[in-house]
Amino acid sequence: MTQKLIGACVLAQSGGPTAVINASAYGVIKTAMESEEITRVFGAAHGITGILNDMLYDLDKEDPEELKFLMNTPSSELGSCRYKLEGEKDLARILEIFKKYDIRYFFYNGGNDSMDTCLKVSEYMMESGYECRVIGVPKTIDNDLVGTDHCPGYGSAAKYIATSFAEVYKDAIVYNTGAITVLEVMGRNAGWLVGASALAGLSNAAPDLIYLPEVPFNLDDFLDKVEAIYKEKNNCVVAVSEGIKYSDGTFVSEAKPSTTDGFGHEQLGGLAATLAAVVGHRTGAKVRGIELSLLQRCGAHLASQVDIDEAYLAGKCAVESAIAGENGKMVALNRVSNNGEYGCEIIFQPLTVSANLEKTVPLDWINSDGTNVTQDFIDYVLPLIQGENTRVTVNGLPRFANLKKIKAEA
Amino acid sequence: MTQKLIGACVLAQSGGPTAVINASAYGVIKTAMESEEITRVFGAAHGITGILNDMLYDLDKEDPEELKFLMNTPSSELGSCRYKLEGEKDLARILEIFKKYDIRYFFYNGGNDSMDTCLKVSEYMMESGYECRVIGVPKTIDNDLVGTDHCPGYGSAAKYIATSFAEVYKDAIVYNTGAITVLEVMGRNAGWLVGASALAGLSNAAPDLIYLPEVPFNLDDFLDKVEAIYKEKNNCVVAVSEGIKYSDGTFVSEAKPSTTDGFGHEQLGGLAATLAAVVGHRTGAKVRGIELSLLQRCGAHLASQVDIDEAYLAGKCAVESAIAGENGKMVALNRVSNNGEYGCEIIFQPLTVSANLEKTVPLDWINSDGTNVTQDFIDYVLPLIQGENTRVTVNGLPRFANLKKIKAEA
Repeated sequence: MTQKLIGACVLAQSGGPTAVINASAYGVIKTAMESEEITRVFGAAHGITGILNDMLYDLDKEDPEELKFLMNTPSSELGSCRYKLEGEKDLARILEIFKKYDIRYFFYNGGNDSMDTCLKVSEYMMESGYECRVIGVPKTIDNDLVGTDHCPGYGSAAKYIATSFAEVYKDAIVYNTGAITVLEVMGRNAGWLVGASALAGLSNAAPDLIYLPEVPFNLDDFLDKVEAIYKEKNNCVVAVSEGIKYSDGTFVSEAKPSTTDGFGHEQLGGLAATLAAVVGHRTGAKVRGIELSLLQRCGAHLASQVDIDEAYLAGKCAVESAIAGENGKMVALNRVSNNGEYGCEIIFQPLTVSANLEKTVPLDWINSDGTNVTQDFIDYVLPLIQGENTRVTVNGLPRFANLKKIKAEA
Repeated sequence: MTQKLIGACVLAQSGGPTAVINASAYGVIKTAMESEEITRVFGAAHGITGILNDMLYDLDKEDPEELKFLMNTPSSELGSCRYKLEGEKDLARILEIFKKYDIRYFFYNGGNDSMDTCLKVSEYMMESGYECRVIGVPKTIDNDLVGTDHCPGYGSAAKYIATSFAEVYKDAIVYNTGAITVLEVMGRNAGWLVGASALAGLSNAAPDLIYLPEVPFNLDDFLDKVEAIYKEKNNCVVAVSEGIKYSDGTFVSEAKPSTTDGFGHEQLGGLAATLAAVVGHRTGAKVRGIELSLLQRCGAHLASQVDIDEAYLAGKCAVESAIAGENGKMVALNRVSNNGEYGCEIIFQPLTVSANLEKTVPLDWINSDGTNVTQDFIDYVLPLIQGENTRVTVNGLPRFANLKKIKAEA
């Protein structure tokens, strides 16, 4: 039997925010506060940099009722960072801070890079003979983490994207004068987010074309297809991933200007505006480019309850498993069938499982001409966007958690 | 007593869509179908052009249960247009179609221009001795119609804007490396929409600066203020109206390029991207421009129940009043106090009330340095965003009305 480990814990949040990363935080905080083994609960300000800078919040001083609102507060309430550990010096500093506060549990809520940080910290603590259990809690809207069926944060972003596409589709086709509308969705190398736009088809408002980064982009083919649909239907709605690339691997968003194809200027406005301009140049149609931008990753009001619940569960199980003796692992979600219905169970993976890998959309979930996803993709994502969240509103506006964020004393 | 007028009615939708224009449509359709006087209910395809082109839908052939979903279907389900009547020829054609279908009631759901169309149609029918009652039903997210306290469509757009600003604010401040975020909101000449971003303050997530089109824009002053806030807080979130203008009246969005201030290229990406680039040039900060674009006017999932109810009521009262003998009027909303609580009653205004006028934000509802709205503004808009709508979702996605849209026969 694993020996009981008594001491404090610290939670940190890293990387790009999601609509539900704070639900994972609440899962960690609440479970830690209720445990006998964990003596104090700290939150690091701005991820691992909060530990390096000795800037921890004393979460035990927060009102427990206020902490509950983390379940529906988007973005990383403790602050985030994009910091890569700089070797021995940083690790020694982390050990120093852990000793200062008697931190015996470290929970890092982030993506790929955060799992790498977890691994380094975990190994260093073991080498140093300092007993500390380290668990990574995954989050990313991009859904590109290997070792987990899907990732907390993805379902809510997918629901936001599908709903927004359905609504914009209704707007984009409203005039008899016709229009071509290009919507840009996040996802640098994986098409999980842009593929979710296909779900708008269940509201009879699917985009006509969907371009994923997994398929090399051909501008001429794109223009031909858009023009053909526009001529037939008088309207065309296109979904593009920010990460679409030409066959030589260069991002379309970074394409060199040319005076002949409408790429007349370098654009600050992003890919959607650029492609809309090019397609307007070709067709003469009224065009509009729309970038979902930050809205898609912080849209907590449209978070899926399934995603919120799973995010909470990931945080809760991280703490429970660490107390039970788990160390150096990443929480992962495993899809199971409950009498034919979607179910999800927590499993644990080595922290190395996702290192330097990105899970992209299987090519056989993309149609043959690379302009849509298949039913397999729909079947995969649909269970993840279920459930309207039970968020609290006050005066018709979101009620976010208002934490005191009191600096911890050792 | 007014004589009973027996005959068909036609409803048409015009101008830019809103999240609740179809709730007004349902108010018209349901009330007309239940009336004894109205024999048939038609919907014109794409506004007045559907009448000119003899393209009417026979709404009596729709499933009444399906029509109910119009209450939560964004955009103009019958299609819209931006067509200005071309004098006598068009009016004569409208009379011809009205006679063909025995149309005795005409309901036009639109903004300023639509009220002008209503007036012309109304006057022409009277001159021609053809008895037909004409009522305008207002809609616009811009809230710039004169003669009504506020306009159906505005409250829902305001709620979408306030919620989205609150969420994006949480995301925009997440990194300790700092950021400046510029969000662009619709409103060519009136600041009602951009001012609604101030409501995010009730979620403790207000933008730091708000620029309305009512106040001349000064780029140097803007840069000074953004830089000062960024230096103090490490973050700055700015709301700008698409319609901000320099003191000479030129739109900032159409400003001529210059190589010295960062306006180095003409931008397709819009005002937010341009201002973000300029402010990044000045401060060296990480910047992001976000345009709420069509999302803000079709975000039915965030429609306010108050707005939905008022939109429905406007349509319902239009029909009831026409049956009772009203003609050549615009439905308007009058704010009343119900024991100190917000209330709203329907009144009728001459169709000329809003002609060639735009209702802008009173200057004393804008703070002295032109970078925010006052409590009077908040008090005005807050009642209009109340109530989470009771929309139906299926599979986690919006359930829109699916009309058959069968072409009418005379």
